[in-house]
Amino acid sequence: MMEPLVGSLRERATSSCSCRTLQSWFPVLSWLPHYNLRWLQMDLVAGLTVGLTTVPQALAYAEVAGLPVQVCMCERERYHSDCPIYLVCHLDPSLCVLDPQYGLYSAFMGCFIYCVFGTSKDVTLGPTAIMSLLCASYMGSDPVYAVLLSFLCGSIQAAMAILRLGFLLDFISYPVIKGFTCAAAITIGFGQVKNIFGLKNIPQQFVLQVYYTFHRIPEARLGDVVLGLSCLALLVSLTWMKTDLVSPSPEHPTYVKVAHGLVWGCATIRNVLVVIMASCVAFSFEISNHHYFTLTGQTAKGLPPFKPPAFSETKANGTIIYFKEIVLDLGGGLAVIPLMGLLESIAISKAFGSQNGYRIDTNQELFAIGLTNIMGSFVSAYPVTGSFGRTAVNSQTGVCTPAGGVVTGVIVLLSLAFLMPVFYYIPKASLAAVIICAVAPMADWRAPLQLWRVRKLDLLPFMVTFLVSFWEVQYGIVGGVLVSGAMLLYHMARPHIEVHDHGVLVMDLDSGLNFPATEHLNQVIYSQALHVSPPRCVVLNCHHISSVDCTVVHELKDLLKQFRLRNVSLVFSGLKNSVLEVLLAGDLPGLKYTDSIETALQILSDFHGAFQPTNED
Amino acid sequence: MMEPLVGSLRERATSSCSCRTLQSWFPVLSWLPHYNLRWLQMDLVAGLTVGLTTVPQALAYAEVAGLPVQVCMCERERYHSDCPIYLVCHLDPSLCVLDPQYGLYSAFMGCFIYCVFGTSKDVTLGPTAIMSLLCASYMGSDPVYAVLLSFLCGSIQAAMAILRLGFLLDFISYPVIKGFTCAAAITIGFGQVKNIFGLKNIPQQFVLQVYYTFHRIPEARLGDVVLGLSCLALLVSLTWMKTDLVSPSPEHPTYVKVAHGLVWGCATIRNVLVVIMASCVAFSFEISNHHYFTLTGQTAKGLPPFKPPAFSETKANGTIIYFKEIVLDLGGGLAVIPLMGLLESIAISKAFGSQNGYRIDTNQELFAIGLTNIMGSFVSAYPVTGSFGRTAVNSQTGVCTPAGGVVTGVIVLLSLAFLMPVFYYIPKASLAAVIICAVAPMADWRAPLQLWRVRKLDLLPFMVTFLVSFWEVQYGIVGGVLVSGAMLLYHMARPHIEVHDHGVLVMDLDSGLNFPATEHLNQVIYSQALHVSPPRCVVLNCHHISSVDCTVVHELKDLLKQFRLRNVSLVFSGLKNSVLEVLLAGDLPGLKYTDSIETALQILSDFHGAFQPTNED
Repeated sequence: MMEPLVGSLRERATSSCSCRTLQSWFPVLSWLPHYNLRWLQMDLVAGLTVGLTTVPQALAYAEVAGLPVQVCMCERERYHSDCPIYLVCHLDPSLCVLDPQYGLYSAFMGCFIYCVFGTSKDVTLGPTAIMSLLCASYMGSDPVYAVLLSFLCGSIQAAMAILRLGFLLDFISYPVIKGFTCAAAITIGFGQVKNIFGLKNIPQQFVLQVYYTFHRIPEARLGDVVLGLSCLALLVSLTWMKTDLVSPSPEHPTYVKVAHGLVWGCATIRNVLVVIMASCVAFSFEISNHHYFTLTGQTAKGLPPFKPPAFSETKANGTIIYFKEIVLDLGGGLAVIPLMGLLESIAISKAFGSQNGYRIDTNQELFAIGLTNIMGSFVSAYPVTGSFGRTAVNSQTGVCTPAGGVVTGVIVLLSLAFLMPVFYYIPKASLAAVIICAVAPMADWRAPLQLWRVRKLDLLPFMVTFLVSFWEVQYGIVGGVLVSGAMLLYHMARPHIEVHDHGVLVMDLDSGLNFPATEHLNQVIYSQALHVSPPRCVVLNCHHISSVDCTVVHELKDLLKQFRLRNVSLVFSGLKNSVLEVLLAGDLPGLKYTDSIETALQILSDFHGAFQPTNED
Repeated sequence: MMEPLVGSLRERATSSCSCRTLQSWFPVLSWLPHYNLRWLQMDLVAGLTVGLTTVPQALAYAEVAGLPVQVCMCERERYHSDCPIYLVCHLDPSLCVLDPQYGLYSAFMGCFIYCVFGTSKDVTLGPTAIMSLLCASYMGSDPVYAVLLSFLCGSIQAAMAILRLGFLLDFISYPVIKGFTCAAAITIGFGQVKNIFGLKNIPQQFVLQVYYTFHRIPEARLGDVVLGLSCLALLVSLTWMKTDLVSPSPEHPTYVKVAHGLVWGCATIRNVLVVIMASCVAFSFEISNHHYFTLTGQTAKGLPPFKPPAFSETKANGTIIYFKEIVLDLGGGLAVIPLMGLLESIAISKAFGSQNGYRIDTNQELFAIGLTNIMGSFVSAYPVTGSFGRTAVNSQTGVCTPAGGVVTGVIVLLSLAFLMPVFYYIPKASLAAVIICAVAPMADWRAPLQLWRVRKLDLLPFMVTFLVSFWEVQYGIVGGVLVSGAMLLYHMARPHIEVHDHGVLVMDLDSGLNFPATEHLNQVIYSQALHVSPPRCVVLNCHHISSVDCTVVHELKDLLKQFRLRNVSLVFSGLKNSVLEVLLAGDLPGLKYTDSIETALQILSDFHGAFQPTNED
């Protein structure tokens, strides 16, 4: 009964290896053979609903990734002093345009690829608020940069998947994720306030943005404000309606069920409804020649061409920016964006996996995202990842398999092919309302309270991530990871050592003994046993030590010598076999070890005679 | 008997606080009041011996820190294409001169300051081979840079001491230190081969140096070769004589004792003897107008002026290099050199402390080195640290207190004041022999064998440090620290989980449970308990867990939900109080915990009735 299970599990794994391997690379093979009509029905409804959410969100996020076309006067010349908005340009190099159709270009490839390679039925890949914000700070909203960034990110992500580096994500702790999402939600949400007010030329850096937005409220356009606030109110009430909706029981009359279905349907596709209604209002004013609203404006029409991404760029003035320069420009983004993309998607798929009772394969998810970004770069997409909001919609509408994504993808393609001229009339304020409502639930104000209650120390990485994110969103997560890593290492370097006096000192290490801890152990032993008069014997209880390294062995050799010099003993008790083997290989002269503390005390009493009297007793 | 000692120790510490605090900042106060004639006698002999070793070593290490004057034709113009040694300059920007007197300028301040602030009786601060090599790669052998580097390093080190950051050194493991010293010994030792051969214009990068040295052996100067090899032979035989020397017993006749004293004395001051003899040979050839040897050449005469370091530099052509530019030029050196200086000195003082049975205070040592470097910059010194060779000589000659350093310092000052003209005739080959013999014992070929025997995995940081050091000596130690840190973290992220089948699964975590490990634990629990049919109950033995964080609590909450969904149980056993408190604060719904595995098994059997049959049995 007691033998470990590892062996038997390994045998079972080997027997079904080839089939499992294929299924693990192409998860579609595990569900497609069982596909049935009920699943198809559910997937169709879910895919449709998600598709109708995707289109307005994708258009809106392109706005986050770039900035209004009116601001762009300086053509990526970072410190161009002739520029009328010199200060703004100087403060923020990314004040250029990314046309809204790039959001849609980015929204369909993930749907198809994830269907074949994804391991979660709920996840929907596409443009997201956080990724758009991150990309904006690196790619300067230049489409060539955006598409190449997508290709490079995808390649890095796919390479990480093939090298099985998914475990790196384990080092991003819960407080860091929470701190980051809270800060990102506030940054993104507030970034849309200017669109609600119809303000232009607002810098992107958070503090400046807050300052200028409030400073210039008097310039707000009444039409945008009224429309934006109405959209917000409508979205919020539809969200509340859905939350409070009670499912009808079978004995309810049909009209109750129909009404319920109608409310549920409207609430679910609320984003589309709001955008359509706002566009209709805007259209009717425009044709009567009243320009009250800031509109999305002209967008490119039709499907994007399928072609490899450009590896160099020729500017309007004829200068060529070569691949190497672009890569240098992207710089740290090539590390931060792939990792953040993974993190966001994995966090989402884990959350929904846990909710719906399935497990995801981190490395396979990584591969799916990587491939999506690589293939996305062939259709002019910028980097994408899993979207929390749309994944939630997908899950709530009861999607059964990743096949729902195919329907979503088709809807996005149809919009691109036939609806682009209509997008001209979408008011920016309505898209802003959609974004604000999508990110608001991410700003979880209970998270810090929870951390405070459970373990106050964990507030430190949370606060570091949260605050630094307002300075530069990508540094927030890096800072948080560094702080939580440093906390881990500090804990490793300063293990708690409990000292009991049994006549001889019994020292109890409460966790492992790795090289950073040796100095601390030494210090405790010296100050309590060797540098007292008379020197005292020590029993080191190694019960909790699961491994030691050469540094520890080297220091212990030294310590044993000091004990010998002072004619006292150091006895190890409760050593695990693996640890004992290392100590024996280390040739420690005078190594004494016993199974239990009692035996150790007995040996010391036999060897050194009566215990020395101590000052403490 | 069982109560922890911490309380009583703290009380005792507080009672003698003020006196101890003063002594801990000025360790001189702890030994000066007890100073006696016997100590004075021993300190005088030791100080004299170390002084006579210091002078030739200091001259020689300035050679390592700079490079022969003949090579310098390009005045710090890094890519000056007119330079006749363009290739060499291009490959190595530090090919300029640091006059040998800078070695002596650096050698005396540490002796005086360490006497007051040091906590080890043996350590001798001054120029060392490794520090000289490191400095060479940053300061480009420009005296202004060298002196400012000393000031900045000292300030950083003193600040670290005041902030009690000495614990950072705990993260440099034994394999990394060994890998670094081996590589540095080979680099420094081989770097002197060109001086033995009398070769000029050899690049400093290790691989190029090996290639060019062998490539240009035909150009070797016979005089230098003969003199260098003779010096080497003499040094090696004197070293061996000292090693094999048997102390005479009191009943031996006086002439045996005198002979023993003579041999011991000659062997101890062998560096001075060899340099003096070589200089005499060179002098006699020079006055007879035979220039067979490469000499040290003209050096500045007299004591260095006492003045603050220059914070900007005016070049010969009138350009001014400002403080900010110099700091940017020094760049990473401002992190690497202070840390390496500390590391070298702390490692040495720990080694001799362990040999002679005393303990050093890391932060106080740090402060002493920092202050030495700051004050050193006022007398044109470059960064110094503890010297292994001279500390060994100091210890072997029986120094009793740091007062021996005062004698050493006075000898260096006397040499500067009166002997500089004589230094003109010191052949470089003899200084090269001194360095080679000083660093040879540091290349410990048994270190990798020992690592292999004790723990093979520790060879990885050793090899990384060793190999990368040949590329750039400062990256070696950084690489090694990163690799050993990554190994620590990996070990933390993938703890060993033993699974036993007692009808229910009993999972045994062999070390702590920190956030990087949660994913792994999840995976094991899912694959062995939740994703099998039927799902199984689990007892998690938390006996070895000393702390948990919010991420762990968050994941456990999720896990408990999964167990509840499947109508099985997860029971924690052997939780420590501190861990239990955190779990309770985390509000885990359905948290069950017991003291022992047996109770847990009993509870599960009562709750779930008979155990489910398992596939494994």
